[in-house]
Amino acid sequence: MKLYDFELAPNPRRVRIFLAEKGVTIPTVEVNTRERAQFSPEFGKINPFRTIPVLELDDGTCIGDSVAICRYIEVLHPEPPLMGRDAEAQAVIEMWERRAELEGMNAAGELVRNFAPMFEDRAIAGVPSGFPQIPALVERGKKRMARFFEMWDQQLADNAFVAGPVFSIADITAFIAVEFAKRAEITIPDHCKHFARWYESISQRPSAKA
Amino acid sequence: MKLYDFELAPNPRRVRIFLAEKGVTIPTVEVNTRERAQFSPEFGKINPFRTIPVLELDDGTCIGDSVAICRYIEVLHPEPPLMGRDAEAQAVIEMWERRAELEGMNAAGELVRNFAPMFEDRAIAGVPSGFPQIPALVERGKKRMARFFEMWDQQLADNAFVAGPVFSIADITAFIAVEFAKRAEITIPDHCKHFARWYESISQRPSAKA
Repeated sequence: MKLYDFELAPNPRRVRIFLAEKGVTIPTVEVNTRERAQFSPEFGKINPFRTIPVLELDDGTCIGDSVAICRYIEVLHPEPPLMGRDAEAQAVIEMWERRAELEGMNAAGELVRNFAPMFEDRAIAGVPSGFPQIPALVERGKKRMARFFEMWDQQLADNAFVAGPVFSIADITAFIAVEFAKRAEITIPDHCKHFARWYESISQRPSAKA
Repeated sequence: MKLYDFELAPNPRRVRIFLAEKGVTIPTVEVNTRERAQFSPEFGKINPFRTIPVLELDDGTCIGDSVAICRYIEVLHPEPPLMGRDAEAQAVIEMWERRAELEGMNAAGELVRNFAPMFEDRAIAGVPSGFPQIPALVERGKKRMARFFEMWDQQLADNAFVAGPVFSIADITAFIAVEFAKRAEITIPDHCKHFARWYESISQRPSAKA
């Protein structure tokens, strides 16, 4: 098994944090997306969608999606559960993970990919060119991030973690959304005290260094 | 248990198709999003994110996300498996389901929400106002849909279903993405023969009427 990874990209980090929380180590292969290594002919065979991370299994099957990789690890290494144990816990965690993806990661992605010069003409993940940046999406991304901070601040007022009393994959996705948005100079607003308390606690977990 | 549902909305249909494939029936409550019923104070208690579907469990817990609802049903009613049985099948299906969400549903959503008059000033799901439509996203949504059709046509050239030889939730998400894009008059291009064959086979399943 090997993990196609890149230190500076948000979705690979999501998997690295998950693995660190599980105590699982997988050999990695660097795909330097800043040098457009994901667009090489060789990598096209690993993942035609040209995104990282990818987990290549020993039978050659390639899992080219961060959450799907986490699912694979969760089934093989169920302890500690990061995607819920019973039906209700699984559903609540998946709801919050998908909300963090839709409201957090998608907003941060919209913001950063339309803002950072490195994404010029490729504002959509996985395309080499032909998708110009749209300045209006920088502004919209900021508004969406503001909404994300507000909604999560409310949820974290009554809960230690995003999906309730226990750390889960929903915290990892929300955390990397915050980290990603920093690249467009957007940070947690001062009045979101619960969110800031949660962010501090996640940042101090050993897995945050992954 | 009850399902907050609306016949004309794509994400509730995703759950209805999943339930029909499982042979599971759940009483429904209509939330007419064309009449903005999701913005009522009552519904805010059910789902502060103002989206449907929502599955309300007997203990009052509300699962306000389509795929999380499917997960809950999958755990309670594992046959037939629609999210994979072993670790590898689960990961491959989740990869394709998320790809269908990112490349299909997000593209169709971008297209339709920036195109249809009913979404004026609320081009983002779950917000009552303040997010104007951006005409450039109609064009970008069409390009993204074209890419979606091409990529899935390649996958379906060698596979009966989206994630391989067996019908799964990945087919449901891809199917509702196609259905949703029709509202902006976008349909499968003539040259995508494999995609068209797959679409025809999914349309003829009894669950497609759900």
